[in-house]
Amino acid sequence: MDVATRIEQALVRAIDMADGRHSPPRLAAAMRHAVFPRGARIRPRLCLAVAAACDEDDPRLTDAAAASIELLHCASLIHDDLPCFDNAATRRGRPSVHSAFGERLAVLAGDALIVLAFDTLAQVSCASQRLCPVILTVTRAVGVPTGIVAGQAWECESAADLALYHRQKTGALFSAATVAGAAAAGAATEPWRAVGERIGEAYQVADDLRDAIADPEEIGKPTGRDVALGRPSATTAFGVEGAVKRLETLVAEAIEAIPACPRAGDLRALITLEAKRLVPKKFAQRAA
Amino acid sequence: MDVATRIEQALVRAIDMADGRHSPPRLAAAMRHAVFPRGARIRPRLCLAVAAACDEDDPRLTDAAAASIELLHCASLIHDDLPCFDNAATRRGRPSVHSAFGERLAVLAGDALIVLAFDTLAQVSCASQRLCPVILTVTRAVGVPTGIVAGQAWECESAADLALYHRQKTGALFSAATVAGAAAAGAATEPWRAVGERIGEAYQVADDLRDAIADPEEIGKPTGRDVALGRPSATTAFGVEGAVKRLETLVAEAIEAIPACPRAGDLRALITLEAKRLVPKKFAQRAA
Repeated sequence: MDVATRIEQALVRAIDMADGRHSPPRLAAAMRHAVFPRGARIRPRLCLAVAAACDEDDPRLTDAAAASIELLHCASLIHDDLPCFDNAATRRGRPSVHSAFGERLAVLAGDALIVLAFDTLAQVSCASQRLCPVILTVTRAVGVPTGIVAGQAWECESAADLALYHRQKTGALFSAATVAGAAAAGAATEPWRAVGERIGEAYQVADDLRDAIADPEEIGKPTGRDVALGRPSATTAFGVEGAVKRLETLVAEAIEAIPACPRAGDLRALITLEAKRLVPKKFAQRAA
Repeated sequence: MDVATRIEQALVRAIDMADGRHSPPRLAAAMRHAVFPRGARIRPRLCLAVAAACDEDDPRLTDAAAASIELLHCASLIHDDLPCFDNAATRRGRPSVHSAFGERLAVLAGDALIVLAFDTLAQVSCASQRLCPVILTVTRAVGVPTGIVAGQAWECESAADLALYHRQKTGALFSAATVAGAAAAGAATEPWRAVGERIGEAYQVADDLRDAIADPEEIGKPTGRDVALGRPSATTAFGVEGAVKRLETLVAEAIEAIPACPRAGDLRALITLEAKRLVPKKFAQRAA
């Protein structure tokens, strides 16, 4: 089964669990709206890619890890889009969850997806000695003080360290994707943290670039938000050219950091390919 | 060590973990504000009481289960109080989290407490065969379709079944307290579900009674919210006298449902004692 199908099936299984006979129908619909149709699924694909590079032997646990990470990512997007944060009316070219279902269901859908992520993990493989390291990898990547929620909270402080903000808000879940992929495959996990961190940072820089220079129609969400909201950003810190250089360095460092593993070559090729998607079309044309 | 001290220490350990050198300070303060000073701690006390009744032999796991349940309860209160839900300015006689820290930090503090609950569970006892049943007990009690978040979402539907709404919004976390207490002690769990359900329902009826007739000063939060917000309530469904009768029946049923266990007598005595706290002072005077 190909990677994309594995991820979508794992997510469908998870959301179907939440959409039962006794579910409040609008909440279930809001959760589904947040998770489908597919986004880029970058984090779960990274998780599966690392597990494959480590010669995985417990694909159900890998799938659960990948799905849990994507569910948590979707949850964070719902809460990020809320009126009190970005007040974003659209996401992936469609209405954001609060635009479509109201603010109350957006709060609840985010909460429900967080819980569903841990349920998905705990139900798949209780007997596995690898489960606990995977769960802890995920909690640390999402919670406080090292995860997404902490990162997001720096937007509520009067001063923030840009590197720390990015590492927590974006890098943490990318590291979790690589570390959890290795943990699910029973491989040593620590060498994989740096790989995820670099890819996460590259992705954040690319996101800042897109926010600064892409067309809203191309990326399916409003642009220019970082400047409008006074948020820390790689383009405001380094300029557009500097941000592109930084992106290239980070991708090279990610590839360099891949530890010895059975299928390192495949993973290197995949990261190189993915990196090409990170530069907005408009900028790629301008650079050409 | 007495029960109250065990619970507070477990909660302090959890919150201290979230309040590190790299934590956004206002978020950490908001989480602390939501969890301390102590509320009634009814759910974790119930969890410890059931584990004790079952002759617990792994108190660290019981403490983690009890703390995770209280953290999730606190998280749900923060999100319930948000302007888009109850818009409650006070909680336990103090400013609610969003009143004190703003709406953004209230959303994030709730999210962070949910994640911290699972982190607390996963870190305590990875080697224990009992951990997974405890985690799944908790996820099912909080998530969709059977837990608090589902219950809360019925407030966003045009029609709701009162019994289902209460079972999910309040009963689920009470059942989790009894079931997780038994699971942490290695006892059979299913007989304990009914005990938690009845106590949870009794507590919800008592809460509805307080909302209808207590002084805001006595209970430290605004009253009359159910009628004002058109929410389903036991007093609007059965009247005040009917609700009190219902409460008494539920407590009797809870005690009746306690399965054979080493210290059933202690637990019966505790539930009887707790039940007396459930009736608002004003009403107890009126009934006398």
